[in-house]
Amino acid sequence: MAANILDAIMLFGDSITQASWELEGVGARLSFVYARKLDVINPGLSGYNTEWAIPVFEQVFAKKEQQPYVPAVRLLTIWFGANDAVLPPERQHVPLVQFIANLKRLITMVRSPASEYYSPKTRILLISPPPVNTHQRGADLSSRDPPRKCDRDFDMTKLYAEAVARTAQEEGVAVADVWTVVWEAAGKDEQALDAYLLDGLHLNAKGYELAYNVINESIKQSYPEIYHEKLQYVIPRHDEIDPSNIRESVRARRLE
Amino acid sequence: MAANILDAIMLFGDSITQASWELEGVGARLSFVYARKLDVINPGLSGYNTEWAIPVFEQVFAKKEQQPYVPAVRLLTIWFGANDAVLPPERQHVPLVQFIANLKRLITMVRSPASEYYSPKTRILLISPPPVNTHQRGADLSSRDPPRKCDRDFDMTKLYAEAVARTAQEEGVAVADVWTVVWEAAGKDEQALDAYLLDGLHLNAKGYELAYNVINESIKQSYPEIYHEKLQYVIPRHDEIDPSNIRESVRARRLE
Repeated sequence: MAANILDAIMLFGDSITQASWELEGVGARLSFVYARKLDVINPGLSGYNTEWAIPVFEQVFAKKEQQPYVPAVRLLTIWFGANDAVLPPERQHVPLVQFIANLKRLITMVRSPASEYYSPKTRILLISPPPVNTHQRGADLSSRDPPRKCDRDFDMTKLYAEAVARTAQEEGVAVADVWTVVWEAAGKDEQALDAYLLDGLHLNAKGYELAYNVINESIKQSYPEIYHEKLQYVIPRHDEIDPSNIRESVRARRLE
Repeated sequence: MAANILDAIMLFGDSITQASWELEGVGARLSFVYARKLDVINPGLSGYNTEWAIPVFEQVFAKKEQQPYVPAVRLLTIWFGANDAVLPPERQHVPLVQFIANLKRLITMVRSPASEYYSPKTRILLISPPPVNTHQRGADLSSRDPPRKCDRDFDMTKLYAEAVARTAQEEGVAVADVWTVVWEAAGKDEQALDAYLLDGLHLNAKGYELAYNVINESIKQSYPEIYHEKLQYVIPRHDEIDPSNIRESVRARRLE
C-alpha cells in the first residue's frame, strides 16, 4: 500500500507474467489469496529475455540503502525462458549458457552480501517456461500478414526449462517446474498441449491454473513461513474490531 | 514495484474490493490493463464499513512527509456502502448521514491542503454498492446453521448508493454508479439480479464485468490523462530495445 503497510511479492518475468492478471492467471490468483497479507506487484515484461531484464531489475529492485523505505520483497519469482529460447537469429534469443548465467546473476544480486541489491528477507522462486506446441505456434505465425515461420522449437524450450530446474537446485532456491507439470497434464503429447496454451507459447486459463497450483505448492513446501494460509491479515478482520476502541483494534500487525 | 518505479492505483473498499482479484473482477482487470503503467494495490477490507475504514485509511495512505518516498497514488477508488447499509442493529450498520459524512471526510483527507494526508496528485473515484437481491440473500442466510434472517433491504442499499452518487457530485469527484448499471442490466427486476450477484450481496463474474466497464468509462471521461490507453509503459516495450545500448533503452520513463 502507499504507506508501505504491506510487504510484497514481486513477479519478475516476461509476457507470461505480465498477462497473468487475465484469464484467472498466476498474478490474479496470488493477489487474491495474499489479499491483506502481501501486495503482489508485477514487473512482467512482455517480449523480454533475461539479458534485457537484468538492467530492468537494477531499476525495480530496491538497493540496500533504499530498502528501509520501500515494501520488503518477501518473495521474488523469476519466470523467463520462453523468449530466451527463441530460435536464432531472432533478436530475443539468448544462448543457453548465457541464460543460465543470467539466472544466477539475478539470484546473486539478491543473495550476495556484497551486492548493492542484497536483500536477506527475499526468498527466490524460479519458474520454468511452459512447453511449446510448435504445431499451434506455427499455425499462428503462418496465419499472420506477412506469414512467418515457426520461431520456437519444442526441444530447445525444453533445454531452457531443464536449465531453470537445474539452476534452482544448484543455487538452493525453490522451483516451480511449470514445464513438467503442463507436459504431464498433456499426456506428453505435443499436440495435446493446446488444452493449456493460447497460441502454442502462452498459457491459457487452464494452463495458468496448473502453473498457479505448482507455484503455490512450491511456496508451501519451500517457504512455508510465507505460505498464504500461514499469514494473518495485516489489518485485522472485521470481527476482531472492538466498537469501543476502533482505532486500536484496526491497527496494522506488520509481518515480522 | 519495490523501488517505486511505478505509481499506484489504490482500491479502498470492503469485501467487494477485496474479492475483486477473483472471478476476473475489478482488481484483476485493472491490474491487467495498467500492467507496466500503474501498480494496483488493494486494501479491500472484507466486512468493513466506512466508520472502521477511516482509521485504516490513516495507516495505509501516506502522510505528506512520507509521500516523497512511496509510490504516488494517482487514483484512489472508494467503494463502500454494502456493509454500512446493513439493517440495524447489525454492528456493521452506519446511519446514512454518518456514511455520507465519512465519505466526505475521506475525500477531504486527500484533497484539503490542511490535511496531513493532502495529496494533490490523487484523483478520487467513488463507486456505489451493487443493488441487493433480498430473495437470494435471504435464502443464503436462512440456509446457514443457525439460520439467520435477511440483514439487507433493497431500498436501504439503494439510499446508500444514491448517496454515493450525490456525494461525488457535491464534492466534484468522479463516480462509477455500479448500483444503477447492475439494476438496469437486470431489467429493474430484483429477482433477476441473481445473474450478477453471487449471493444477493456480492458481485459474480458478470457483475464484476459490468462494474469494471463503468469504472473504466468513468476514468476515461473524468480523468482521461490516466486512462490506461493514454499511458505509456514505464519500462519500454521490447521492440524499443537497442541491442547496442540495452541499458539506456530500457530506462524507466516516470509518469509526470
